[in-house]
Amino acid sequence: MGSAPLIVASNRGPLSIVAVDDGDDEVRRGGGGLVSGMQAALSAAPDAVWICAALNDRERAMARRCTSGRLSEVPAVADALAGDFDVRMLPIDALTFRQAYNGIANSTLWFALHMLYEPARSPVFDLAWRRQWAGYVRYNRAFAEAIAAEAAPGATVMVQDYHLLLVPRMLSELRPDVRIGHFTHTPWVPPEYFRMLPDDVVHDLLEGLLAAHVVGFHTRRWAEQFSACCQEVLGRRPAGLEVFPLSTDADEMHDRAYERDVNRALRGLRDTVGERTVIGRVDRTELSKNVLRGLLAYRELLRTHPEWHDRVVHVVYNYPSREDLPEYREYTAAVERLAREIDDEFSTDDWTPLVLEIGDDYPGSLAAMRRSDVVFVNSVRDGMNLVVLEGIVLSERDPAVVLTREAGAAETLGDDAILINPFDVSQTAAALHDALAMPEDERRERVRRLRKKAVALPPVPWFRAQLDALAQVSI
Amino acid sequence: MGSAPLIVASNRGPLSIVAVDDGDDEVRRGGGGLVSGMQAALSAAPDAVWICAALNDRERAMARRCTSGRLSEVPAVADALAGDFDVRMLPIDALTFRQAYNGIANSTLWFALHMLYEPARSPVFDLAWRRQWAGYVRYNRAFAEAIAAEAAPGATVMVQDYHLLLVPRMLSELRPDVRIGHFTHTPWVPPEYFRMLPDDVVHDLLEGLLAAHVVGFHTRRWAEQFSACCQEVLGRRPAGLEVFPLSTDADEMHDRAYERDVNRALRGLRDTVGERTVIGRVDRTELSKNVLRGLLAYRELLRTHPEWHDRVVHVVYNYPSREDLPEYREYTAAVERLAREIDDEFSTDDWTPLVLEIGDDYPGSLAAMRRSDVVFVNSVRDGMNLVVLEGIVLSERDPAVVLTREAGAAETLGDDAILINPFDVSQTAAALHDALAMPEDERRERVRRLRKKAVALPPVPWFRAQLDALAQVSI
Repeated sequence: MGSAPLIVASNRGPLSIVAVDDGDDEVRRGGGGLVSGMQAALSAAPDAVWICAALNDRERAMARRCTSGRLSEVPAVADALAGDFDVRMLPIDALTFRQAYNGIANSTLWFALHMLYEPARSPVFDLAWRRQWAGYVRYNRAFAEAIAAEAAPGATVMVQDYHLLLVPRMLSELRPDVRIGHFTHTPWVPPEYFRMLPDDVVHDLLEGLLAAHVVGFHTRRWAEQFSACCQEVLGRRPAGLEVFPLSTDADEMHDRAYERDVNRALRGLRDTVGERTVIGRVDRTELSKNVLRGLLAYRELLRTHPEWHDRVVHVVYNYPSREDLPEYREYTAAVERLAREIDDEFSTDDWTPLVLEIGDDYPGSLAAMRRSDVVFVNSVRDGMNLVVLEGIVLSERDPAVVLTREAGAAETLGDDAILINPFDVSQTAAALHDALAMPEDERRERVRRLRKKAVALPPVPWFRAQLDALAQVSI
Repeated sequence: MGSAPLIVASNRGPLSIVAVDDGDDEVRRGGGGLVSGMQAALSAAPDAVWICAALNDRERAMARRCTSGRLSEVPAVADALAGDFDVRMLPIDALTFRQAYNGIANSTLWFALHMLYEPARSPVFDLAWRRQWAGYVRYNRAFAEAIAAEAAPGATVMVQDYHLLLVPRMLSELRPDVRIGHFTHTPWVPPEYFRMLPDDVVHDLLEGLLAAHVVGFHTRRWAEQFSACCQEVLGRRPAGLEVFPLSTDADEMHDRAYERDVNRALRGLRDTVGERTVIGRVDRTELSKNVLRGLLAYRELLRTHPEWHDRVVHVVYNYPSREDLPEYREYTAAVERLAREIDDEFSTDDWTPLVLEIGDDYPGSLAAMRRSDVVFVNSVRDGMNLVVLEGIVLSERDPAVVLTREAGAAETLGDDAILINPFDVSQTAAALHDALAMPEDERRERVRRLRKKAVALPPVPWFRAQLDALAQVSI
């Protein structure tokens, strides 16, 4: 038994340890709306702890030096956290971490939950895969045991995402006294698809999650698909299923988006695009984000509607992600090839039809959002997609929104966005045309409503709502 | 209005026109249980007609020469059909046929209904695809118009498969007096997957099929998934939904399997395998048949159970299919590579662990079925899979059956087969081991029941049952 009344558990923690020039460790505090949402709640609870995995050798070494397991032993961390709450970073061995994180979480569960498999070839669940799965089980057990050791009697534990689907059940067996919440940030899928996973794994994942007292998803749709899996596989409806549609924090986004580096990037972008209409998108280089079909749709738009030539620029910011997986590198290469083809087909001395930036350029991506006349998101499947909400909040142009119906955000934004089937390139091209051609008063009217919806449940109340739901559970 | 009281419509007809040595046309009558099942019903109805597409230039030329549209004008055809029924072969132009058959039926609908897409890359519904779709609509209309012209007042029309999903609605508009049955030989999929297709196409396909008075599938599962699509997309339950689980005709299979060419092939196979236990499989080189994971499972069996070395031979017959599609050629090449790897890893001077035959060798495949101790089918998705039923009927060895749960045949055969998840290579390897190790009396007991189930509804009563169901509909 420990002393923490509130624990957050997630793969990635609120801070990271990086090497600085002289080889020393430096502690960096993570950003992003979600982290700040949880930090706010943790800071309000005395003696709260955030439990996360050490992500590399440097972090593992530091975690192992802390005899209590808590990073506040390290002066630099104590300074960075300023006494708010403590962090326990689990020094899970490198092989186990790689198996759990790359092998299962990102190569198996991410693909299953985003319907990204290529069933003629993938998945293949063989002996090699079983070793990865054993790593995922060990990794989840390490979390469950650390939580059990830190949790005060009757504590509240908030477990995050598909990395930790087995934790609720493991933890409830170790500590039946604690209240367990779990939130899945990805989509879920129908039983027909989820049952591609091995039978025992399907069973263990569903039972693992069902042991949580509150099981949270971004949308009704994912919650219903999870429920359908439980009914078909386990023969019972899940209790404690709840929907918390995360949105964005307008103030925090605005503060960041008007810093000097973003202003500078925006001036550069204005030099490129001039007075032209901008279709903007910002994504990770992630298969599910569907950049390739997005570019195909833009090409079809330019081919079928030459009236937009020289009047529109498509600005695409792609943040590199999962470059260790070959299918991701190949996908990004295909995106670059198609971008060159579009440039070859349409660009003139005066007009660059497409600006594709692949790199880690957060100020540039915020500048693109501020300058977007059309906010464009066409993921094949997406738990929520906060970027579309951020784009709506940050654009200074009363943007029209073209949005895939397969993102959780479609449930939040509804028909005020132009919703598309992400596989239908022609429909997407037509939607881009409709967005470009939308009368100004209609755009203003729609975006007025969209801006409200985009900030309906920002991280702090989103996390608060989950804690409230959990507090009402009798255990 | 025509004079035919009974019409069958299908892409491929009961006969084909081939060139013989001197360049002349020769008429070949098709075989296979399904064709004979429908022929029996057609022969019993005076003036019945089978309407099919001309599949190549030679057939188109012959079809165009028939002024009535009916092939009985050609003496050789009249001889081949021996007055049973007539055949109308539609001389659909080559481009339309290619668009409908390759572009939509085999590259779009087959992939959608077997869940074979690779959603990060495929499908892509763009302008080029729309041209293919227009071809599919024209092809379906050609059938609907030909049927409307041939059908007697109040006639019965049996439309076959995913090539002709739009025909029932088109036909019911032209001829509200006829009774329309449709049978889908493929699986169906949940709405979440079917709705990857463009919205208007989803709508038209479902409405197209719903206009049939009886909509038939091989299993309850596919019928329920079709029903779920109708409810989610059209907001209504389909009427006339029925299940007709086709099985095999034991007598017809036996007659063919004991002809001289098969006996000769069986002697050759015996020389190779000796007294060893044979795991047999027979498939088309089709992505959905999952030969690659089948070989991976066999390799894992040999790696984890060395006691089977030199005691087992895996005999794989693959009939080439859809070689015009590059993904099929690549898949077959991958199968051949893996087969070589398995041979390199395990074969000895005395033992060939794997016999892979890729080619058109029907007698050889029947011989393999007769010699199989284990009948192995692991499709990722399969409307019925008649081969597993044929294997049960033909094997002379009281075979154990390892069968994917994703084939319609799993609903027919149930737990007397060892059912597997086709993506789970380790489970498949374990199932192969269990099949090899199954005590003789258990095998005998199971196969006794399996043999009954395998012949429960052969083609003639299967087709008769559909006609009966249709006769009971009031229109």
